[in-house]
Amino acid sequence: MFIKILGSAAGGGFPQWNCNGLHSSNVRAGKAGYRARLQSSLAVSDNGRDWVLLNASPDLRQQINETPELHPDRNGARRNSPIKAVVVTNADVDHITGLISLREGQPFTIYGSDRVLATLNANSIFNVCAPDKVARKAFDLDRPTALEGAGVDVGLVVEAFAVPGKIALFLETGNAGGNFGSRDGDTIGLKITSATSGKAFFYVPGCAEIDAPLAARLKGADLLFLDGTLFTDDEMVSQGLSAKTGQRMGHISISGPEGSVEAVKPLAIKRRIYVHINNSNPVLDETSQARKFVDASGWEIGYDGMEITL
Amino acid sequence: MFIKILGSAAGGGFPQWNCNGLHSSNVRAGKAGYRARLQSSLAVSDNGRDWVLLNASPDLRQQINETPELHPDRNGARRNSPIKAVVVTNADVDHITGLISLREGQPFTIYGSDRVLATLNANSIFNVCAPDKVARKAFDLDRPTALEGAGVDVGLVVEAFAVPGKIALFLETGNAGGNFGSRDGDTIGLKITSATSGKAFFYVPGCAEIDAPLAARLKGADLLFLDGTLFTDDEMVSQGLSAKTGQRMGHISISGPEGSVEAVKPLAIKRRIYVHINNSNPVLDETSQARKFVDASGWEIGYDGMEITL
Repeated sequence: MFIKILGSAAGGGFPQWNCNGLHSSNVRAGKAGYRARLQSSLAVSDNGRDWVLLNASPDLRQQINETPELHPDRNGARRNSPIKAVVVTNADVDHITGLISLREGQPFTIYGSDRVLATLNANSIFNVCAPDKVARKAFDLDRPTALEGAGVDVGLVVEAFAVPGKIALFLETGNAGGNFGSRDGDTIGLKITSATSGKAFFYVPGCAEIDAPLAARLKGADLLFLDGTLFTDDEMVSQGLSAKTGQRMGHISISGPEGSVEAVKPLAIKRRIYVHINNSNPVLDETSQARKFVDASGWEIGYDGMEITL
Repeated sequence: MFIKILGSAAGGGFPQWNCNGLHSSNVRAGKAGYRARLQSSLAVSDNGRDWVLLNASPDLRQQINETPELHPDRNGARRNSPIKAVVVTNADVDHITGLISLREGQPFTIYGSDRVLATLNANSIFNVCAPDKVARKAFDLDRPTALEGAGVDVGLVVEAFAVPGKIALFLETGNAGGNFGSRDGDTIGLKITSATSGKAFFYVPGCAEIDAPLAARLKGADLLFLDGTLFTDDEMVSQGLSAKTGQRMGHISISGPEGSVEAVKPLAIKRRIYVHINNSNPVLDETSQARKFVDASGWEIGYDGMEITL
């Protein structure tokens, strides 16, 4: 199974368009120790020919351009693509907007929860992926679904499961407060299994807490991509970027007694990679103490173009 | 007045993600005489400090990254942007999707016709540009509107006018046929005037025909950016890329007795630049006969990063 990180940043990317904070301004200025990052997405393939995207970021057109594996086959039809399916974990704009760039009448399948598909259905702009060519398939949580698209069985099985999280920001209403940290299925993680090798990995780009059911599920895994949005819960507040804490945004922090490094430590996961990294996160500076802490913990900081074979 | 082309390609960009046609495969392979192009957008500024975008393409985040004029001021607030307003000419996905990338609570103003704003209002995803921070202002056609955003008068005046065109593809319904080539306000052109110098230019990225009212309006202009989608009406059909002609898509062709080169010839426009160039257009090959025809006609082929001072 081949896995490639298309984007390792949280929503907004790195740098963020309107951010003059320390890290965004440093990466924009080309400071050593920083690298730019596109928004959150992975590509996965069992056979190296047919690919599935996990989330479709607003940067998807650039991500396809920069990823030869996702280019049309030069010996194929006038219009063709190796992208056979897109699995969406929630309705955040950084996870669904890229679907708009997959227009032009190319058949593929969109997989998501009922809730995510309801958001796509309620926004007519997603009809650029014409429903007669682009199937939208809801998966049940906690049940394996074999992925297919454009008539091709891609040899991958997805199992989606609810994780502590919150509803997409643009769908919040006045009383959304009660939803924070909920397990209502607004935020899901994915287990992707190769149908040929049986190998599997977990992709959990948004997660408010590693609670007991999630810990039980992840235990002993070969590979985990986890929400690395924030290093500390209040870093956006203390950097003057926002009034929101990580808990308010539905994101666990990396550090601290309730952070993900500590929470995952007892789970004996072989390879652990942070993705969905926010522009406020000090690990973006490769020379920082935060980065050294993560390196020493045995976790890796994912980067755009990172390739893993499992 | 400073004008910069952020993207010179039609919807899909160049190369287009799923296109294995001659030109997309050549530019992807790095063939000499080709350059990649992002999707259709201009940036305009009267004072060089406050900027207005004409259309917000799906590539907007990349366009901002690649355009230093659009970066936050390093000496400004933690969150800041020189982008004060976006003027949208129609509801095509290549002209509105970039609005989704202008989230993060930054104040600016979106200008469009009633019809375009109705599409934004009907798609909740655009609420990432929170209505309490991002004003949506409808302009009347054929009346000058002074542009402002984030409390700043940017010193530019826009006058929008209907041109022959058609409704956005994703909004077409079964009986949309009657709308092709209509002047119902689904497709508009813009006249942008500097309030300080009085200089003006026209931006008409989609246009089915240079009819008499449009010709009268453009006559004697200093500068015109015009729909250069296609070189010949049937090129997408003959290249095996689509069953649609230019007329079906609402786009005039460059060449031929009814093309834009001929139609604009009597209008004595000082500088004429094609934008919104489709991946099928042979002018994308700088060595082509089509390109030589355009060069000899006195027109220019716009390119990403092209700068004009007026």
